[in-house]
Amino acid sequence: MAIKEGLRPGGRSARVQESIHSAVRALLEEQDRATVTVPQIAARAGVTPSTIYRRWGDLSALLADVALARMQPDSEPANTGSLRGDVRAWAEQYLDEMSSEPGRNMLRDVQSSLTPGFCATLIGGQLQTILDRYPDQPKPSADQLINLVAAPSVFRILFSKAPLEVEELHRLIEIALGQ
Amino acid sequence: MAIKEGLRPGGRSARVQESIHSAVRALLEEQDRATVTVPQIAARAGVTPSTIYRRWGDLSALLADVALARMQPDSEPANTGSLRGDVRAWAEQYLDEMSSEPGRNMLRDVQSSLTPGFCATLIGGQLQTILDRYPDQPKPSADQLINLVAAPSVFRILFSKAPLEVEELHRLIEIALGQ
Repeated sequence: MAIKEGLRPGGRSARVQESIHSAVRALLEEQDRATVTVPQIAARAGVTPSTIYRRWGDLSALLADVALARMQPDSEPANTGSLRGDVRAWAEQYLDEMSSEPGRNMLRDVQSSLTPGFCATLIGGQLQTILDRYPDQPKPSADQLINLVAAPSVFRILFSKAPLEVEELHRLIEIALGQ
Repeated sequence: MAIKEGLRPGGRSARVQESIHSAVRALLEEQDRATVTVPQIAARAGVTPSTIYRRWGDLSALLADVALARMQPDSEPANTGSLRGDVRAWAEQYLDEMSSEPGRNMLRDVQSSLTPGFCATLIGGQLQTILDRYPDQPKPSADQLINLVAAPSVFRILFSKAPLEVEELHRLIEIALGQ
């Protein structure tokens, strides 16, 4: 992420960031994303364009940051009481969100940003939360789940005619859990 | 693909296409891709811009078409004498090509084109060629190989800090062959 670590939440810096994020969200609702500019965002947020350039470097990094913040789940992954159930619930929601219009836009923005690696880190963190709930069970690593479940979901959205069917998703989860 | 099916290879239409493709390749070697324009390509290829718009619709579709043509292997997948060997050889080459600068550009161009589905079709065809060599052997489908081998390769290139290690690639191939 472009945001510096260790900023006091709720401080001046966080308020500036939040006003810039809201300006982006508002503009994206009003007009096509290809026409949004940094000076426009700055004017709406009440900051100078250089504040935005200093913090994010360029427009695509800012758009990626807003998209990631929007996609970052505000709650823990669902706890269904079983590893299989948790992974299925997570994977179905992930497939659903990424197939949506905002999800596809996020995938595109994140790729053109300087921090695409943050995406895998975010997903890995969510999957690790699930795995940590079942310490005594043989299970795949978060990386294996990313390779076997998240990767095919996203690959099919980006490069295939049809997204993954839920049955195929379940089959991939069984393969991952069998490792 | 934007090119109409059933055109006579070597005919006028194929010659026009080839001269436009070469113009794009030459310009991409001379200047940054973000600065290449349709009128420039048209001038270099000796056609009018409307010829390009009529055939491809827009610049990104043309760039995707050129990138795909360049990535389209001019030979069959290597025949090593075993299913495992063929899949490994294919997957290592695929990972290698997609991690390269032209490979990453192609992944980006294809996504912004109107025919991203062609990518999975192309890969599926290559994998099917390999699978058809071993009719009497239990084996995964081409789709399963795409999900378990091609998808993690590309996902990690686009969204992770580090590409897939060859050992991980081999482990994924073993999983796919075990299905």
